[in-house]
Amino acid sequence: MKRYVIKGNICYSRSSTQLCVAENSYVVCENGSCAGVYQTLPECYAAFPCYDYTDKLVIPGLTDLHVHAPQYPFRGLGMDLELIDWLNTHTFVEEAKYADMEYADQAYEIFADDLKNSATTRACIFATIHTQATSLLMEKLEQSGIKAYVGKVNMDRNSPAYLCEETPEQAAMDTEKWIAENSGYENIKPILTPRFIPVCSDELMQQLSNLQKKYHLPMQSHLSENLGEIEWVKKLCPDTSCYGAAYDKYGLFGNDCPTIMAHCVHSGPEEVKLMKEQNVFVAHCPESNANLSSGIAPVRTYLDLGIKTGLGSDIAAGSSLSIFKAMAMAIQCSKLRWRLTDQSLPPLKMEEAFYLATKGGGEFFGKVGSFEKGYEFDAVVIDDAIYRHPQPLSAKERLERLIYLAQDGCIVAKFAGGTKIFEREASIL
Amino acid sequence: MKRYVIKGNICYSRSSTQLCVAENSYVVCENGSCAGVYQTLPECYAAFPCYDYTDKLVIPGLTDLHVHAPQYPFRGLGMDLELIDWLNTHTFVEEAKYADMEYADQAYEIFADDLKNSATTRACIFATIHTQATSLLMEKLEQSGIKAYVGKVNMDRNSPAYLCEETPEQAAMDTEKWIAENSGYENIKPILTPRFIPVCSDELMQQLSNLQKKYHLPMQSHLSENLGEIEWVKKLCPDTSCYGAAYDKYGLFGNDCPTIMAHCVHSGPEEVKLMKEQNVFVAHCPESNANLSSGIAPVRTYLDLGIKTGLGSDIAAGSSLSIFKAMAMAIQCSKLRWRLTDQSLPPLKMEEAFYLATKGGGEFFGKVGSFEKGYEFDAVVIDDAIYRHPQPLSAKERLERLIYLAQDGCIVAKFAGGTKIFEREASIL
Repeated sequence: MKRYVIKGNICYSRSSTQLCVAENSYVVCENGSCAGVYQTLPECYAAFPCYDYTDKLVIPGLTDLHVHAPQYPFRGLGMDLELIDWLNTHTFVEEAKYADMEYADQAYEIFADDLKNSATTRACIFATIHTQATSLLMEKLEQSGIKAYVGKVNMDRNSPAYLCEETPEQAAMDTEKWIAENSGYENIKPILTPRFIPVCSDELMQQLSNLQKKYHLPMQSHLSENLGEIEWVKKLCPDTSCYGAAYDKYGLFGNDCPTIMAHCVHSGPEEVKLMKEQNVFVAHCPESNANLSSGIAPVRTYLDLGIKTGLGSDIAAGSSLSIFKAMAMAIQCSKLRWRLTDQSLPPLKMEEAFYLATKGGGEFFGKVGSFEKGYEFDAVVIDDAIYRHPQPLSAKERLERLIYLAQDGCIVAKFAGGTKIFEREASIL
Repeated sequence: MKRYVIKGNICYSRSSTQLCVAENSYVVCENGSCAGVYQTLPECYAAFPCYDYTDKLVIPGLTDLHVHAPQYPFRGLGMDLELIDWLNTHTFVEEAKYADMEYADQAYEIFADDLKNSATTRACIFATIHTQATSLLMEKLEQSGIKAYVGKVNMDRNSPAYLCEETPEQAAMDTEKWIAENSGYENIKPILTPRFIPVCSDELMQQLSNLQKKYHLPMQSHLSENLGEIEWVKKLCPDTSCYGAAYDKYGLFGNDCPTIMAHCVHSGPEEVKLMKEQNVFVAHCPESNANLSSGIAPVRTYLDLGIKTGLGSDIAAGSSLSIFKAMAMAIQCSKLRWRLTDQSLPPLKMEEAFYLATKGGGEFFGKVGSFEKGYEFDAVVIDDAIYRHPQPLSAKERLERLIYLAQDGCIVAKFAGGTKIFEREASIL
């Protein structure tokens, strides 16, 4: 039925500057969508069952726009390298293990479980090149109740032999078969996932472009993360004017099919213009960009230009699945960018970070990430009583604090698309 | 008696580059000091009681070289300002509340409790100008088993009337009385704490200098945190050649009496030379320096020069008491500094961050922060089983991971100066 009322302190974004806080109020779920936030519950909803979360905070579920599931085992490890060396030394070695279904089963079980227990309700996930393991990940995620896009990764050049698709044709056949086998889920959908230009041949990109035309799938990849990477792309694609254009050449850069590009740390004016014109989403991954010494993306520019932007954990270049942590680091890194490189771009405010984590990233999934009327009903209920304080705090202050303090143990209930994923006691940390 | 053996995976620093890991080994506590780490337990210790923490990690207790206890209630709040505005808008208003002993009792109870439950065994703590509340904080901390220096803050100019000492003479009398009343504790010692040059008159600095000569107390303050602050100090002290020299003028800058200066983000060559010559400790507070848009301190320079350096949480400009988080941010910020401003200073390695958090900061307390023979026995036992992984991990990898992942719930035992502070089950996060 998916009709119920949640009572609590309700916080959500209308825009990047407009945070709405309704203390001691009601938010209504009807047929899986939000029917509104009310100070006094309208008579017509009086008969709906009510979850009483008085004193707790109720926020939209968070969106993780960029996360690599197979890298979860080595989160927090081996971060003394920059991107390309990090991929070759740690990442590819780990991802190769997913040819082994027993390993994949163990590893993805942990990932799906931890993601379920986090504040994330929506995610865009990279798997590996292995179709069977990727299908298993999708099956596990479907059961978790999370709503997500999952991509079988494509890569066919400049990759170690043990993690490289044989031919573009074979890659396309495998991918098409994987799409067919995984299109029946309620919560989990396939997404095209060329890893990034350096490891995808022209022929492979053309094959993926054909698949996109045939199946109208969204697409995710990486863009302008690291200076060395950008130089490499220039050499590999001498006929394109910027890194983004190397995707666009194959029609794989926004427009009809929703596209996420992770990072965009060093995107130049032409690339940014293309992103804006073609509605490309930016997945801002501040922790990853610090850990791999990539830099700090100009998120203020993206917000000012109206470029669609959300946050990504980017496991395992980021160490934490927590999108609260991504919010905190987005703010902190924007301050360091302001201080160290460009005082024309004011740092992000907490309202903006919260927007990025909810409505900003949520938009990739449609009307997701807010409690405005008609939005899909994703909600997270937080018991922050464990973060004790001697003074009174408003709901807004409690939300602000959570950006810095929240740990998974304080999440006491979670709903996605109107369905309850779990309800539990807060755990003592 | 304080004689016992701990069995587990033992990790500690000998130097900033030398991390020792003894898997499945023994560390011996005798009379409150470390008697060595052994792969096989020597016969002479066979009769000592043994805590069996097989499979768990055992590390030295962490040192927090800079934390403001009264600011703990507003951690995570109000961080859209730079230092001076932040002090005037949020900090002084909160600190004024500690004139009220009921408020102080509530707030300091939470602080002492959370510090006790953290991985920190040693701390250098700012209180407020209020002697009575400061004494209460010391009493609570003494009971917690943590070993700490606590400072009644001195400030007598450029401060709001509600948080300003009346005269330098009165400030000195109050401070002396407070010292006398709080010198009998086993774990907690007084430390001189002029807040920072902008709020301390020449006369006050002279009075504190006299007190230092009389009581041989250590001293803590702030240095070169923010560009506006540094300009202000230049105006206030036109006869001094650098900010550090304004402390040194009164003999309050290292030498005979151990001194900690928090931040040192923008210290110039002359100041750095003075710090080195006079053995001033740097409390590096990376999260605070990001949150208040201060910048990133050149920790690599300090390590290369052999300047004594440790980490600080700097609550509430930092949001978290966790020195694990300070380690992670020290590494991350050093990478961003390398990328954005100065490629001559290589980023910090995990071994260096761990050293800063243990032996580096611990040195302020004497032989503290290592399991080398003769070191005071501070230990933290960590059950990281909650951070599940499908692949085998070495003890060193588990330690590296904890820098990024550790939450208080994974700490299962803590010892300071040989005394057990607590032992408990890991909590599920």
